[in-house]
Amino acid sequence: MVDVAREAGVALRTVSRVVNDDATVGAELVERVRSAIAALDYRPDERARHLRLGVTGTLGAAVRQLSHVNPVLRAVERAARAAGLMVLAASTEDDEKIERHVVESMCRRRFDGILLEPIGADHGYLVPELAAGLSLVAVDRPVLGLEVDCVLSDNVAGIETAFAHLVAHGHRRIAYIGDDERIYTAQERATAFRACLRAQGGAADAMIHTGPIQRERIHRALESALSGPSPATAVITGNATLSVETVRWFRDHADDVAIVGFDDSELATLLRPDLTVVAQDDAAIGDTAITMLRTRIAEPATPVRKVTVPVTLRARGSGETTPKRP
Amino acid sequence: MVDVAREAGVALRTVSRVVNDDATVGAELVERVRSAIAALDYRPDERARHLRLGVTGTLGAAVRQLSHVNPVLRAVERAARAAGLMVLAASTEDDEKIERHVVESMCRRRFDGILLEPIGADHGYLVPELAAGLSLVAVDRPVLGLEVDCVLSDNVAGIETAFAHLVAHGHRRIAYIGDDERIYTAQERATAFRACLRAQGGAADAMIHTGPIQRERIHRALESALSGPSPATAVITGNATLSVETVRWFRDHADDVAIVGFDDSELATLLRPDLTVVAQDDAAIGDTAITMLRTRIAEPATPVRKVTVPVTLRARGSGETTPKRP
Repeated sequence: MVDVAREAGVALRTVSRVVNDDATVGAELVERVRSAIAALDYRPDERARHLRLGVTGTLGAAVRQLSHVNPVLRAVERAARAAGLMVLAASTEDDEKIERHVVESMCRRRFDGILLEPIGADHGYLVPELAAGLSLVAVDRPVLGLEVDCVLSDNVAGIETAFAHLVAHGHRRIAYIGDDERIYTAQERATAFRACLRAQGGAADAMIHTGPIQRERIHRALESALSGPSPATAVITGNATLSVETVRWFRDHADDVAIVGFDDSELATLLRPDLTVVAQDDAAIGDTAITMLRTRIAEPATPVRKVTVPVTLRARGSGETTPKRP
Repeated sequence: MVDVAREAGVALRTVSRVVNDDATVGAELVERVRSAIAALDYRPDERARHLRLGVTGTLGAAVRQLSHVNPVLRAVERAARAAGLMVLAASTEDDEKIERHVVESMCRRRFDGILLEPIGADHGYLVPELAAGLSLVAVDRPVLGLEVDCVLSDNVAGIETAFAHLVAHGHRRIAYIGDDERIYTAQERATAFRACLRAQGGAADAMIHTGPIQRERIHRALESALSGPSPATAVITGNATLSVETVRWFRDHADDVAIVGFDDSELATLLRPDLTVVAQDDAAIGDTAITMLRTRIAEPATPVRKVTVPVTLRARGSGETTPKRP
C-alpha cells in the first residue's frame, strides 16, 4: 500500500479509503489510486482487510457429507449467491470431533456466519464462539441445549403422513428402517413412528430398526422385519440412502412390499414402480436458512427463531400397493 | 496477548513463541503461558497468525457442483484428513465467472493450496496468483494453456473400451450422448468417440449428441439417435447424470437398447439390468491430487506433473445385450 500511495502521489490513508470503497473519496483521487493499483498489480490481502472490517462476504457451511446429494446445500448456495455471498463448505462426517474442528476453524477465519447441520448432544464448544459474536443457524437439526436459530423439517408430520398413507392402503404391519438415533432427525422420526405404532395398538420392537447407514446393517434389518410369522407388508425408510439400500434389497428378495421413503431424490422416478416419498421442501429450507443467517448477522440481538418447514407426501406407486399377504 | 503476558508474568514475545509452538521455550514458561491463556480464555485469531506464518492447515477445493454425488471430492477429503488437512469447498457451477471469484477468494484467504476442477479455456487470472506462489492442482481437467499439475482419468481409453465392448456384442450403430464440449472431459470423450466411429467406417453426425446437462436436451438427443431408418442399437453416455437421464428415457421409450455409461454410481446396481460402466478410479484420483498438492506446497520448484489414472470397464448386464434389430 505504501508503494501504491507513492505511485499515486496520495496519502497512505487515501489508498486505504479507496480500497475499502469509502464513498467520500473524490473521483479524481479514486482514479489515481486505481491506476496505481493496476500499474503495481497490487492485490489487497483479504485476511488483513477482514481483520479490520470483520466482514468477509463468505458463509461457512458445515454439513454431514459434502460429496453426497444434498438438495438443501444446493438451495443454500443458490440463496447465498443471490445475496452476493459465497459459501465455503466442509464435511463433518457426522463426527462430533470433526464438527468442532470445522466450526472452530471457520470461526477463526471470521466468516460472516455459519450454517451447521449439528451432530451430537454436546455443543458446549459453541458457547464462547456465540458469546464472541458468531452468527450461527442450525439446519435440519437444532443445536440441543443452546438458544440458536434453526430451520427444521416437520419430521413428525412426515412420519404420521407416511404411516396413515400405508394404513389407508390396507397395511397393518408396517416396519421402519431408520438412521442412527444419536442424530436428531433420526431420533425424532423413530419416536414419531413408535407413537404411530402405539396409536395403532401394534407390536413395536420387531418393526423398528434404527442404526448406522451401513448396507449390511440395513439388509439384516429388512430380513428381520420381513420374515417370521408376522412379516411386515410395508416399510417406511428414514432417509434417501436408506431408501436406496431398501430398494436394492427388495430387488433380489421381495417384490410385494410397499415402501414410502423419507426424502425425495433423483432415484425416486427411475424405479418401477416409482418411489412414493415424504419430500422435504429443500428450497424453502435453504432460503429460510440464508434469510435467518443474514438477519442474525445484520441484527445480532434479534430474538432466536425456530422455523419448521412442512413436508409433502408424493404418491408415485411404491406406497399404493395393497398387502399381498393377509 | 498483552493481557496473557501480564497474567503469566512473561515477555510478550514469550507468549508469541508459546502460541506458535516454538520448541525452544522451557517447559515451565510454556505451562505459565498456557495457564494464563486458559484463565483469560484467550483465542488466537487464525487470520492474524496465518498472516505471519503463511500456513493455514486448509486446502480449498473449487468443484463443479458441491451438492451432487462427487466420489473424487470424497476421496480428496479422506486423503486430506489423513494428512491432517481440512478441505473447504465451493461450487463453480461450471461458470467461468464463479470459478474465478471462488479461486481468487481462496487465494486471498491464503489457503495452503487449491484443488480445481477447471472450466473454460481462459485461465489468465491464475497467472499472477501462480507467480505469487499459489499451489494449485487441477483435477479431472487440465488448466489449458498453463503449466499446472493435474490428475486426469484416461478418457480416451474409457471411450475406446466401451465402444469395443459394444462392438464385441454385435452392435454396429452406437450413439454417444455427451456433456457440453466446452468442458474438457466432454470434449475429450466426444473426440475419442468420433475416432472410434471413423475407425469403424460409420456415419458420424446422427450418432453424436453433446450439449448441456438438461433433461429435455438429452431426451431429444435419444429420440433422434434411436429413431429413423437406421436407429442406434446401443448408447454410450458421457457421465453419470447422462446415464440417469438415459435410463429414465429408456424406461418409457425403449427396452431393447444396450447402454454403457461413463462413471460408476450408486444407481448402477439398482437398475434391471445393472448398468455396465466405465469406472474412474476415484480413490486413486483423490489420493494422487492430495499427494501432488502437498508436494507442490512443500517444494514449489518441483517440475509440473500430469498424471493419467486408468479406468476400468465393469460389465453388469446393460452393455452385454445383443442388438434386437438387425
